[in-house]
Amino acid sequence: MKTITFVFFFFHFLTVSLAHPGMKRQHYPCKNLVLYFHDVLYNGQNAFNATSAIVGAPQWGNHTILADKFHFGNIVVFDDPITLDNNFHSVPVGRAQGMYIYDTKNTYTAWLGFSFVLDNAQHKGTINFIGADPIMVKSRDISVVGGTGDFFMHRGVATIMTDSFEGEVYFRLRVDIKFYECW
Amino acid sequence: MKTITFVFFFFHFLTVSLAHPGMKRQHYPCKNLVLYFHDVLYNGQNAFNATSAIVGAPQWGNHTILADKFHFGNIVVFDDPITLDNNFHSVPVGRAQGMYIYDTKNTYTAWLGFSFVLDNAQHKGTINFIGADPIMVKSRDISVVGGTGDFFMHRGVATIMTDSFEGEVYFRLRVDIKFYECW
Amino acid sequence: MKTITFVFFFFHFLTVSLAHPGMKRQHYPCKNLVLYFHDVLYNGQNAFNATSAIVGAPQWGNHTILADKFHFGNIVVFDDPITLDNNFHSVPVGRAQGMYIYDTKNTYTAWLGFSFVLDNAQHKGTINFIGADPIMVKSRDISVVGGTGDFFMHRGVATIMTDSFEGEVYFRLRVDIKFYECW
Repeated sequence: MKTITFVFFFFHFLTVSLAHPGMKRQHYPCKNLVLYFHDVLYNGQNAFNATSAIVGAPQWGNHTILADKFHFGNIVVFDDPITLDNNFHSVPVGRAQGMYIYDTKNTYTAWLGFSFVLDNAQHKGTINFIGADPIMVKSRDISVVGGTGDFFMHRGVATIMTDSFEGEVYFRLRVDIKFYECW
Repeated sequence: MKTITFVFFFFHFLTVSLAHPGMKRQHYPCKNLVLYFHDVLYNGQNAFNATSAIVGAPQWGNHTILADKFHFGNIVVFDDPITLDNNFHSVPVGRAQGMYIYDTKNTYTAWLGFSFVLDNAQHKGTINFIGADPIMVKSRDISVVGGTGDFFMHRGVATIMTDSFEGEVYFRLRVDIKFYECW
Repeated sequence: MKTITFVFFFFHFLTVSLAHPGMKRQHYPCKNLVLYFHDVLYNGQNAFNATSAIVGAPQWGNHTILADKFHFGNIVVFDDPITLDNNFHSVPVGRAQGMYIYDTKNTYTAWLGFSFVLDNAQHKGTINFIGADPIMVKSRDISVVGGTGDFFMHRGVATIMTDSFEGEVYFRLRVDIKFYECW
């Protein structure tokens, strides 16, 4: 009888801990994805190849003198190919779609709001992200706030690294998506 | 004694499953709402009736040649009435407020960030959405990432359907909101 | 035996309630933070001190006549200092970075998408917010949709109050952040 009671309370302690929203849960991902996306910024000449463009405060028609300062206030809309490796010419597995906003006067930082739209043999569904991106930092974390399809109701954290860039036209980002709520 | 032990572990298995963030949970909504919202885009002549306007890269003062391509880069801000049925003249139960961004060069897609602000006999509170909207697809899913008031801490998935449209001025959207976390 | 069975089911009822996503959970915060942030809007003369600027539909080059109506359609990008008290001159503990969009024609309301980037002795990490902001209402709630670092995976509700303002240039906001999922 005593053993049963002990086991009973021991398990209850565990269960209540996991269930209680204010307590520590296990911090290993239930799913992990590493993907790359490739941003080719419109520079006035590359309309065919460009995957993104400054739309909020265009450099060539700049309404505020603040935009000279690390692009402050520039809004960039993008539709970038996503690949499984770091090769720009690999077959895309989806598109990264949304926007980023340059939001500091004295360094490069951005605020991100975008989605991964995946449609391939492995994954069909969308992953939704928002967060602050201190671009000059090697590795920075943003939030995975929701998902649909294969990523139904998922939440997590995505670590972004600038994998490569060429001037102000090409940026390649490595995104390490760690889901901690998978459903 | 054996029966009790069996029941005990059976229930524990259930409870731990539900509580563990990395495991499958039940996929039926804890709450469901079907609402319509009505977007009347500003076309230069309808300032009184318009509920939304292109602000990022205006068509009539277009800074990038990309905007000719399926409105790429256009940012639209909206404050649209929400109704319980598909009648534009029904008494609104709230407002859909936020923005969408056209984000593809070769088809119509948008990125959405907006809130439902509900204030009526049935519902008081806000519901916050983000996600990718492949406009030409009949039914598309976005994330419900949070809520306040009656929708305190809610999460879920919203299915959007273009219920009707007239040219490029009037769009009626049906939104089937399925909450899977209700608190 | 009867007592044990009773206790057993009583506790199970509690646990299942807490774990089941569709059921009421306890509504007291697992963590609480009160912070202030200070928005100094660019007015054409204060580039040095300004922490934010209208970029989407600038007042001085307004593309739509709707913007006369309570700034409808104006997009403001900001990088505002965060302080522990309501003194603008206190040492900042981080930055509030992101955007707000004026989104009503007949009153002042905004849609918010931003992050708190905290980097101090007490807190290192980011907190991500979205939501509707009916500016003229004394106290309004938005969603905390995720976090990183010390705020890993956190969710909650933030109550925003306009603590002070001077004309259309200086706004001080008090933010009472209540986390209900803390990990």
